[in-house]
Amino acid sequence: MTRSISLLGATGSIGDSTLDLIRNDRGKWNVVALTANCSAKKLAKLAIEFGAELAVVGDEGCLSELRQYLSGTAIESAGGAQALCDAAARPADITVAAIVGCAGLAPTMRAIEQGNTVALANKEALVSAGEVMTRLVEKHRTTLLPVDSEHNAIFQCLEGGKPEDVRWITLTASGGPFRTKSMAELDAATPKQAVAHPNWDMGAKISVDSATMMNKGLEFIEAFHLFPVGLDRLRIIVHPQSVIHSMVEYRDGSTLAQLGPSDMRVPIASTLAYPARMDTNCKPLDLATIGELSFFAPDEDRFPATRLAREAAHAGGAAPAVLNAANEVAVAAFLAGQVKFTQISAISARTLNNYAPPAPQTLDEVLFVDAEARARAGEMLEIA
Amino acid sequence: MTRSISLLGATGSIGDSTLDLIRNDRGKWNVVALTANCSAKKLAKLAIEFGAELAVVGDEGCLSELRQYLSGTAIESAGGAQALCDAAARPADITVAAIVGCAGLAPTMRAIEQGNTVALANKEALVSAGEVMTRLVEKHRTTLLPVDSEHNAIFQCLEGGKPEDVRWITLTASGGPFRTKSMAELDAATPKQAVAHPNWDMGAKISVDSATMMNKGLEFIEAFHLFPVGLDRLRIIVHPQSVIHSMVEYRDGSTLAQLGPSDMRVPIASTLAYPARMDTNCKPLDLATIGELSFFAPDEDRFPATRLAREAAHAGGAAPAVLNAANEVAVAAFLAGQVKFTQISAISARTLNNYAPPAPQTLDEVLFVDAEARARAGEMLEIA
Repeated sequence: MTRSISLLGATGSIGDSTLDLIRNDRGKWNVVALTANCSAKKLAKLAIEFGAELAVVGDEGCLSELRQYLSGTAIESAGGAQALCDAAARPADITVAAIVGCAGLAPTMRAIEQGNTVALANKEALVSAGEVMTRLVEKHRTTLLPVDSEHNAIFQCLEGGKPEDVRWITLTASGGPFRTKSMAELDAATPKQAVAHPNWDMGAKISVDSATMMNKGLEFIEAFHLFPVGLDRLRIIVHPQSVIHSMVEYRDGSTLAQLGPSDMRVPIASTLAYPARMDTNCKPLDLATIGELSFFAPDEDRFPATRLAREAAHAGGAAPAVLNAANEVAVAAFLAGQVKFTQISAISARTLNNYAPPAPQTLDEVLFVDAEARARAGEMLEIA
Repeated sequence: MTRSISLLGATGSIGDSTLDLIRNDRGKWNVVALTANCSAKKLAKLAIEFGAELAVVGDEGCLSELRQYLSGTAIESAGGAQALCDAAARPADITVAAIVGCAGLAPTMRAIEQGNTVALANKEALVSAGEVMTRLVEKHRTTLLPVDSEHNAIFQCLEGGKPEDVRWITLTASGGPFRTKSMAELDAATPKQAVAHPNWDMGAKISVDSATMMNKGLEFIEAFHLFPVGLDRLRIIVHPQSVIHSMVEYRDGSTLAQLGPSDMRVPIASTLAYPARMDTNCKPLDLATIGELSFFAPDEDRFPATRLAREAAHAGGAAPAVLNAANEVAVAAFLAGQVKFTQISAISARTLNNYAPPAPQTLDEVLFVDAEARARAGEMLEIA
């Protein structure tokens, strides 16, 4: 039996991993739509290799280049934000939503409206649009499968379990490259140091988020929306080896944990094959060679981001979207050498305190809050 | 909704833990039968406290004492091996089979024949009667729930999964009190040193089995019968903290693990409430305080017992029963000061090599093999 799949964000690292899995089992998959922002050449090559029905670039300026590469094929092509949404709305058994940032919000919402299965790899979606998105998931009875390794781990540990039987959901955090650094060292940390993540090979923005622990803070908010156990049963533990991806403790004292290599093909495969399993050629877990797993309580004095995220989740409404937007602006400023590492959290905190709009009820309202929060965080950079 | 329960082996440590859980939720349980070997006073007290229908002592000589303690109550009483089997045959929603050793075999088989749920805490049952017992489970469509913390962990990690999707089942072993000892030190080890287990408070025999790693060997055979993934997908890893109770790796590279305190109430609760969960007042897992989990490959030169068990499982038929019986004789001789610690495995190995009867087809044949293997191991003690 073949299954149809669309991949929103086909040329990024989640796209690479997803297509690698499909490549190993070509006969089982019928590729509907592949999208990219502007990597026209790579997108065309993939569309041809996988016999996609449709290839879409989000940036309309890249459409003519895409069409050149696709000339002579029967593959449809389109460009622009609306075209991304139309691609997401095309029926598919499973849609992998992997467009980074707010650009992915609208297409992800359209994929959810389809009412099939959405494998969600867009972190900002649930953080910014949390309640708007979860209401849509309920309305359309969509199966939402988390791709993030932590949330995927929790999802696996909750299989067959019930939220009311959960005592704790524990997100593990590597602690990032600055885990053992003093406040003075954090103050002097450079972008180059911040992007050198010990376990995962990721983009610059998410690497900085890992260094500040804001990545875990955003994941905390995501988990709050995905797994309805309440904020007081969600916690974070620092686990530098990132072997345990997260855990669920039940009320009888049993804790289930999911472990694995730092390879996104593992969680992606679990969503593609759900509720069954599929092969990956990821290396088996060899704990005797790893030797040791260690655990520490988070230090929210040095890394206040998780506290900010908890406060934003507690406030609800627009607060998580404000925090996420402010953090993006502050991280970009840090990477550009405009502000110090420790100012990232400070700017986010100040934006969160100074801008408290009412809870957004629609996607447009989410996007408005996002834009306004960015503008306000930007103003703070001037005085930072 | 109340559920009915029988507890075969009510006065041992599994019995204590089980009744502790029932005591916390008295209204939900209707206690049918409680049995003991000869602890008449304790058994009578429990039968009265829990309003049992029936109290049975396996040792007929203890029946009159039991009757004295029960006089004036409406609780039925009986004694002897057949009475144990009759108690096990009495209908109950769940039967906890916790009689230690071969004495528990026949009653466990009778409980299985009932076709309800059997929570199996009798290790010897599956080791000695493996195929005879698993055929009976299939025939009567009994739900067999493992109580042993390792097998209970695997069972939890397999919930929703399929044996054909399993890449590895990994049993964790504490490594026992002699994990870091040299061969010379093992040669000189005393019973007192051997029974001092680092993590679990257990009886003398099972503590010695933990020190030789034969406990893990027997669990390996148990796992082979409980989880049909084949011997080449079963392995053992040494994990001194015993926090991870066992793991299942799936073919996509996801490993699920069950973690928890060294408290048998956790796995027992998971069987009593299955497929739901019930409260226990066991302490939540605090990995930040534990700090570190470590893992080592087993050393089968110093601890050959797991190799012997794998060979016995591979040979199948009577071999596991022979190994188990020989080990019991050798451990008793060690505890009595008759043989050295390192001779326990040697005597077991020699018995296994010298006695290879055909595969037992009935419980009686299993018991015959067991008795004959004990006799032969006993003869070896003379020349040891």
